[in-house]
Amino acid sequence: MTRNAKIDEAALKIDVRPPAVILCEPQLGENIGTAARAMANFGLTDLRIVNPRDGWPSEKARAAASRADHVIDNVKVFDSVEAAIADLHFVFATTARSREVSKPVRGPDEAAVTVTGYGRQGLGTGYLFGRERWGLNNEEVALADEIVTLPVDPQFASLNIAQAVLVCAYEWRVKASGGALPFRLDEETNPPAPKEDVFRFFEHLESALDEINFFRPPEKRPSMVLNLRNIFQKANLTEQEVRSLRGVIAAFERRPTRPHKSAGEAVDECEPNEQETGEE
Amino acid sequence: MTRNAKIDEAALKIDVRPPAVILCEPQLGENIGTAARAMANFGLTDLRIVNPRDGWPSEKARAAASRADHVIDNVKVFDSVEAAIADLHFVFATTARSREVSKPVRGPDEAAVTVTGYGRQGLGTGYLFGRERWGLNNEEVALADEIVTLPVDPQFASLNIAQAVLVCAYEWRVKASGGALPFRLDEETNPPAPKEDVFRFFEHLESALDEINFFRPPEKRPSMVLNLRNIFQKANLTEQEVRSLRGVIAAFERRPTRPHKSAGEAVDECEPNEQETGEE
Repeated sequence: MTRNAKIDEAALKIDVRPPAVILCEPQLGENIGTAARAMANFGLTDLRIVNPRDGWPSEKARAAASRADHVIDNVKVFDSVEAAIADLHFVFATTARSREVSKPVRGPDEAAVTVTGYGRQGLGTGYLFGRERWGLNNEEVALADEIVTLPVDPQFASLNIAQAVLVCAYEWRVKASGGALPFRLDEETNPPAPKEDVFRFFEHLESALDEINFFRPPEKRPSMVLNLRNIFQKANLTEQEVRSLRGVIAAFERRPTRPHKSAGEAVDECEPNEQETGEE
Repeated sequence: MTRNAKIDEAALKIDVRPPAVILCEPQLGENIGTAARAMANFGLTDLRIVNPRDGWPSEKARAAASRADHVIDNVKVFDSVEAAIADLHFVFATTARSREVSKPVRGPDEAAVTVTGYGRQGLGTGYLFGRERWGLNNEEVALADEIVTLPVDPQFASLNIAQAVLVCAYEWRVKASGGALPFRLDEETNPPAPKEDVFRFFEHLESALDEINFFRPPEKRPSMVLNLRNIFQKANLTEQEVRSLRGVIAAFERRPTRPHKSAGEAVDECEPNEQETGEE
């Protein structure tokens, strides 16, 4: 029913140094694992952990990572936030609450612009995440350059760590890849039709409708034609779709209840049949 | 250590009809629950389920929703995708794979622009999500207007449903709220200083440095002054920070190892003390 993705090459090649993710004193191995998986989804691999409560390595983390083993195997453990970010050049602290610290507060999209900018120069950046229960303390936030927070509904603001990591990683990839998606419309097999084909389809449709005296009263023909053309313009038809529609019109033209058969010039070229008008 | 968030009013008021989330034949109640929580984080409440495998209501869903009870209580169950989206005007199908269906493929950011546009007119929109194991079939995708896919790393593309819902809901809120965050820098208590104060700080610093013959050789003074000013310009100082820095300079000026005491005009106004230069 589906075929494998034709992977867009642009979605694979990202020449930007990705940020590190630093988890400060995470309590549950599961959360480390789901954070690792979220990182892997968007191409991040540098996971650093400060004083994990239940130690490291963690089988619970590996299981929760759902095969993001390359992230789990690469984890580095530190005994302070200072040590964990020592080699980085710009760090965002993530918080869900307003702080008395006077630092710029950014959304994940703005933060990703900054991180991507430094990453293009090969400089190390990071996102610092706090504990499950109470986040980062003010001294830890003070170690970072700026604050990033998510644009949540203030009345339901509680996200788990993996969700917060996911949104930051997603925004990084959007900015670093210029919005490249793993696939788009398959443009080789489904190009938009050349306008010439679309115009000939319009003329075919309109001549078929003239034949059955559709445009009444005649003075309304121009506006009716415009309206019909607009419908199909909006559909941004492919060549195959133009052929299918011309097949439909030709079939109507030949229907047995009508005695006269149209001598439409295009019937020979569209070779209408049942299959062509169905799903492709 | 932290205080409660001062909630930004703009983050609360969103005058845009939010999209529905439609889950097609979800297998696990937990996934319905985590999807509901992700919706609630970004202000979505209209959750529709087509033929949930384990029936409805689901205690597992409620537990996994982490108090997003307003979403769970509001769930509507349908026996077909057609019925679930009948009242909507524009629907995105989410897929992780290229399709043979000729439909535009959008990123979550592009999709959110469309959904927000219709939502501003009060029109109903929706995101259709497939089964955990194999997503949507081509007939279901064909019921939608366009396809949305996430810009994942093609080599690690597997997201769970709640993660996919989270990113779509996040992008909706970014677009619908104009990027409003729940909090920003507290501008009432931490405004950037007026330039006049910054310039007087510069002059204070430079006269204190002139006093100790810091600028040598004299012909280099102009460029040295520029460099120093740039350092503090980048910091985008608040009024309080300007006062703290002037306290630091005044303290250096008065240090006992130097016999002459500066008669700086600003010393009386900044009242330097230990506390002022510390963390606030």
